[in-house]
Amino acid sequence: MPGSSFGKAFTLTTFGESHGVALGAVVDGCPPGLALTEADIQADLDRRRPGRSKYTTRRQEADQARILSGVFEGVTTGTPIGLLIENTDARSRDYANIKDLYRPSHADFSYDEKYGIRDYRGGGRASARETAMRVAAGAIAKKYLSVRHGARIRACVSQVGELCAQSFEWDTVEENPFFCPDPALIEPIAELIDRLREAGDSTGATITVMAENVPAGLGEPVFDKLDAEIAAALMSINAVKGVEIGEGFGVASMVGSAHRDQMSESGFESNRAGGILGGISTGEPIIARIALKPTSSIAKTGRARTRTGEVVDLATTGRHDPCVGLRAPPIAEAMVSLVLMDHWLRQAGQNGREVSLIDR
Amino acid sequence: MPGSSFGKAFTLTTFGESHGVALGAVVDGCPPGLALTEADIQADLDRRRPGRSKYTTRRQEADQARILSGVFEGVTTGTPIGLLIENTDARSRDYANIKDLYRPSHADFSYDEKYGIRDYRGGGRASARETAMRVAAGAIAKKYLSVRHGARIRACVSQVGELCAQSFEWDTVEENPFFCPDPALIEPIAELIDRLREAGDSTGATITVMAENVPAGLGEPVFDKLDAEIAAALMSINAVKGVEIGEGFGVASMVGSAHRDQMSESGFESNRAGGILGGISTGEPIIARIALKPTSSIAKTGRARTRTGEVVDLATTGRHDPCVGLRAPPIAEAMVSLVLMDHWLRQAGQNGREVSLIDR
Amino acid sequence: MPGSSFGKAFTLTTFGESHGVALGAVVDGCPPGLALTEADIQADLDRRRPGRSKYTTRRQEADQARILSGVFEGVTTGTPIGLLIENTDARSRDYANIKDLYRPSHADFSYDEKYGIRDYRGGGRASARETAMRVAAGAIAKKYLSVRHGARIRACVSQVGELCAQSFEWDTVEENPFFCPDPALIEPIAELIDRLREAGDSTGATITVMAENVPAGLGEPVFDKLDAEIAAALMSINAVKGVEIGEGFGVASMVGSAHRDQMSESGFESNRAGGILGGISTGEPIIARIALKPTSSIAKTGRARTRTGEVVDLATTGRHDPCVGLRAPPIAEAMVSLVLMDHWLRQAGQNGREVSLIDR
Amino acid sequence: MPGSSFGKAFTLTTFGESHGVALGAVVDGCPPGLALTEADIQADLDRRRPGRSKYTTRRQEADQARILSGVFEGVTTGTPIGLLIENTDARSRDYANIKDLYRPSHADFSYDEKYGIRDYRGGGRASARETAMRVAAGAIAKKYLSVRHGARIRACVSQVGELCAQSFEWDTVEENPFFCPDPALIEPIAELIDRLREAGDSTGATITVMAENVPAGLGEPVFDKLDAEIAAALMSINAVKGVEIGEGFGVASMVGSAHRDQMSESGFESNRAGGILGGISTGEPIIARIALKPTSSIAKTGRARTRTGEVVDLATTGRHDPCVGLRAPPIAEAMVSLVLMDHWLRQAGQNGREVSLIDR
Repeated sequence: MPGSSFGKAFTLTTFGESHGVALGAVVDGCPPGLALTEADIQADLDRRRPGRSKYTTRRQEADQARILSGVFEGVTTGTPIGLLIENTDARSRDYANIKDLYRPSHADFSYDEKYGIRDYRGGGRASARETAMRVAAGAIAKKYLSVRHGARIRACVSQVGELCAQSFEWDTVEENPFFCPDPALIEPIAELIDRLREAGDSTGATITVMAENVPAGLGEPVFDKLDAEIAAALMSINAVKGVEIGEGFGVASMVGSAHRDQMSESGFESNRAGGILGGISTGEPIIARIALKPTSSIAKTGRARTRTGEVVDLATTGRHDPCVGLRAPPIAEAMVSLVLMDHWLRQAGQNGREVSLIDR
Repeated sequence: MPGSSFGKAFTLTTFGESHGVALGAVVDGCPPGLALTEADIQADLDRRRPGRSKYTTRRQEADQARILSGVFEGVTTGTPIGLLIENTDARSRDYANIKDLYRPSHADFSYDEKYGIRDYRGGGRASARETAMRVAAGAIAKKYLSVRHGARIRACVSQVGELCAQSFEWDTVEENPFFCPDPALIEPIAELIDRLREAGDSTGATITVMAENVPAGLGEPVFDKLDAEIAAALMSINAVKGVEIGEGFGVASMVGSAHRDQMSESGFESNRAGGILGGISTGEPIIARIALKPTSSIAKTGRARTRTGEVVDLATTGRHDPCVGLRAPPIAEAMVSLVLMDHWLRQAGQNGREVSLIDR
Repeated sequence: MPGSSFGKAFTLTTFGESHGVALGAVVDGCPPGLALTEADIQADLDRRRPGRSKYTTRRQEADQARILSGVFEGVTTGTPIGLLIENTDARSRDYANIKDLYRPSHADFSYDEKYGIRDYRGGGRASARETAMRVAAGAIAKKYLSVRHGARIRACVSQVGELCAQSFEWDTVEENPFFCPDPALIEPIAELIDRLREAGDSTGATITVMAENVPAGLGEPVFDKLDAEIAAALMSINAVKGVEIGEGFGVASMVGSAHRDQMSESGFESNRAGGILGGISTGEPIIARIALKPTSSIAKTGRARTRTGEVVDLATTGRHDPCVGLRAPPIAEAMVSLVLMDHWLRQAGQNGREVSLIDR
Repeated sequence: MPGSSFGKAFTLTTFGESHGVALGAVVDGCPPGLALTEADIQADLDRRRPGRSKYTTRRQEADQARILSGVFEGVTTGTPIGLLIENTDARSRDYANIKDLYRPSHADFSYDEKYGIRDYRGGGRASARETAMRVAAGAIAKKYLSVRHGARIRACVSQVGELCAQSFEWDTVEENPFFCPDPALIEPIAELIDRLREAGDSTGATITVMAENVPAGLGEPVFDKLDAEIAAALMSINAVKGVEIGEGFGVASMVGSAHRDQMSESGFESNRAGGILGGISTGEPIIARIALKPTSSIAKTGRARTRTGEVVDLATTGRHDPCVGLRAPPIAEAMVSLVLMDHWLRQAGQNGREVSLIDR
């Protein structure tokens, strides 16, 4: 049973390899009547695009998405939306030398163990390039949630290596090449990236996602809790190794009387829960944080293994990001948007005004 | 679209409320021929059971599971396995006073927002009592993985409040009331729990899960990655607020050359990845860590809200755990076992010897 | 991947064997607020119950269904509804002689080929007894559709052997032991059944299902069309070998100008389509017809085969229906109700007032 | 919850409208190692293609399918296969006159009721043109089943109007423009089609599908029975109004002793069951029959209705098939192939040698 589909009510199915013909997606379940153009999708794709600044990979991909179906006379019809991005700057020859190699910290070995075969060109399906279609689909979800309910989903880079954001000025985020919310950190990050590139090394990072104006009541007990599905969505992004909701791992050392969000007449006095209780949204902002490992493709020599079991030294050349986290905020936003959209429709389907027998 | 089912190939569907008639489950997709008795299931249920030591809730539930179907002459038949636990110590009257109240840090408010109705007896469906059926189903998965492949899935309490395990002696884990792997920590945890109970407060904790002897190749690109599904599985456990795989959040401050697991002739030189690369198992031990928030039901007075919007002071009496984390290891083991079992079957279905055209 | 679950938004998962401990079900996704008692479910179960008249099997099963969860203070809560029927008249010893035999026209051989193992007691999971839980769950769907929208779903026996109903008087259906809509046919059917029982033989039948007052707009293009899902639902009933919608096979020899339902100001001039166009309901009555094969368990000797390949003569004794079709109308109603309920919720989830951006 | 995906283990997701930019599909779950080229797919597409003979629509579509992913160096990799067909002969202007009309026997009315919006160009998503992607995906399933197990899935036109095939000479089927297995019927069908076109009318038809060399054991009790899923698959094809397995509706008037397939040492003495018992394949040929209604788009004037409720006379001009059944065999083969492929993988996943504990 394959794993290229996401969501139950608002579904995304993707295909495509890093250096294949094209990347594509089918978004099914979008309510009819949403005004949607290719420009709506392109905006977020451009934020994720490689080659956007000198701090990311130099691969040049236009990442121009076409809408192939599901939109008629400028609005969604309710039928599946086909999306396509043709690959233009694929250089398979760059990868001939790793054809029979398992690179350290890559998915080469595990894919080969799984399938007994592997598309070695740029990681094939395991490449982070695959996330472009998540961003495209997420843009549709994000627009719907914004138009229909005024929801706002944003993400920023909250840590790069040892450098942690101390302030969260969201207006700053889109105005620097690092999606950084702390103006004081921009210069130090730039220096760190330059230093790493020179050293042929890379660094990890954390991303913080915040979803505001999300209605209370989203999330399904007991397995499809909203936080469980957000965790899966974010952990499914390449390089992510940790997910937190609200206070996250900090809760382990807290006492209950300090952790609990006490209630006020209009809502909650605090939001340590990160907007979710019992797996269901409370109406408070949903806050998640993820950790991304340092880029695995680095120039520093490391030990790889051949398919026949020989250990060899390998230095990765080619066009790589010194910190994959720096391009991850649009991806994290997209994944959270897809989860919220899916649960919005699921909530409507069981508890919406049309189906409920409860007078609210 | 409801959320009471888990897994795609090996599926678990549960029902039941904390103070209702019974808890039940349907486990579908179990391969035929597995020797299975109620005792196999009971062993893990007893490890999770309330009232097992003086450090947990005093509610007394036998949690006696019956197998209603799917097993004939001592072995599984391949058809769905029905499981049932009757509630015996349900005292609904304990909850009459919170009938119209939203308790802080509970799911009362969010459930009411979702459904417009709520079973207030002991949290109803939101109670951690629901996890009993996860443990029962997980025991089946665990047994299959052990019998078929020699896999071993274990969990321990690695942190309680500020107390962190410094050593991991797995033999110790089942010999103390705290599932604690560090003998030096047992006494301090006992004191902490006593102190908290006296103070009418509670504490958070972390659990570490380790799955050994898991075959390489499990996990489905790109959304149903093994780590994504483990993250969802663990985050769906009541009170969990964070999930890490391998080095987890530690990766954010590491450089690539220090983080990567270099390869050796027989496998990997290290296992910072926690047994998963590109969302697919590598054959190395799978390591996950979760954080659980402090119990929300505490004796210390806190501000609750009535359904009509009035803020009131509330002290929770009744029979509660001062640290829900202390009963969570069997639940975490169960959820990881369910994910591995599901992916074992999914892998067999696409890439097993019977279906593959690759000669391996 | 197992097949014991039905529906996507309103889901039914069943378990249990004919001569096991119990039959059970989980109904998940029911909207909250539906007044529901065990009596609501029992009414339909009693209509399907064995031993209801002298024309059906003499096995005596009370088929008493208990609601184990999901209902609180008389109304559904939105959480999963657990249902249980204990088997009381199971006589496994009746089946010892077929332990190693594949009976003709039964599922013995195919189950053994599938699982390599088989619960031979009364057909185990392959027994039509399994349909009791479908009827129980269908009763919930039927009640919701009736209360919420005034929908009415009924079925009758339209043919037994060569005897075909010429009139459809629905008031008659529940007043004779054959669910027969044609008063002139009741006596002939009684005689036919008596004759068949004497001869140790059985007969096939057809059932007609009609769903009235179903809203237009239900059904999902392109694979989950309403008629496609009704076809699956009905074909999944034991012994069914054919399904028709509207004019059914009659359309093959019609010309387009005679077949099409021309439109009127208020709807359609005719309903040859059976209430579904393009896989979506039109608001006209939905009409389906199914054919059930003659009971396979008959006293007339037939050739069976042992597991080791020997052909033997076998006469089935025991308590069997001479015409399984005679107990099928409540099952057919239930399956159609489950499909309509599922699509009602699915429609609400994508196109309901809460989610749509279209002003209707 | 949308309905554009089919299958659970071998999944097909399609998008595209009749007169939109393109038709596309994602096939996920294909085992790795299958030699696959665009020519493999094109062969079946060409059999379904419009404009193939003078007896079908004159719309000229090359229906040239491109493989966009999932195939590397000539073989499948196990990752999703993206497929695309660009529309080349779309003439939207042909449909301007029906923009606000509900045509009789079309999906115009029901789509509008569902979505509140509608792509009126050539039926949009409701057009049979959508089935091109089913045929493309089915070709992959068909090839796998053939290569891996020697299975053969074929279909023919067994009835056109009153003309019924009396002989089934499969060699004849691909050598006449009607997929007709009875040489004596070819001339009469040609005359009938000419006569209908002149009269501005159309006719219904039946298709017979046969799948040979299918292994025993495919199909999942109790809802996902093999025949139930075949019924859904076939009923989801545009214009289909009835589905039969084996003897189909004929069983209603048979007695059990005449209907049952008695067993022989090597299998069964007959195959009235159509290769399926208890929802599971027996190893005998699987035989299904479907009825397709006459084409709804005919030149004879009929009563349509405007969106505002006015009844108007409408004669459909444009390029239409006088008998949609004549192009349906490749579609029926494709749908049955998809079901068999899905169940092949599902069977491998639960009961294959790798997962089973039964020694067979």
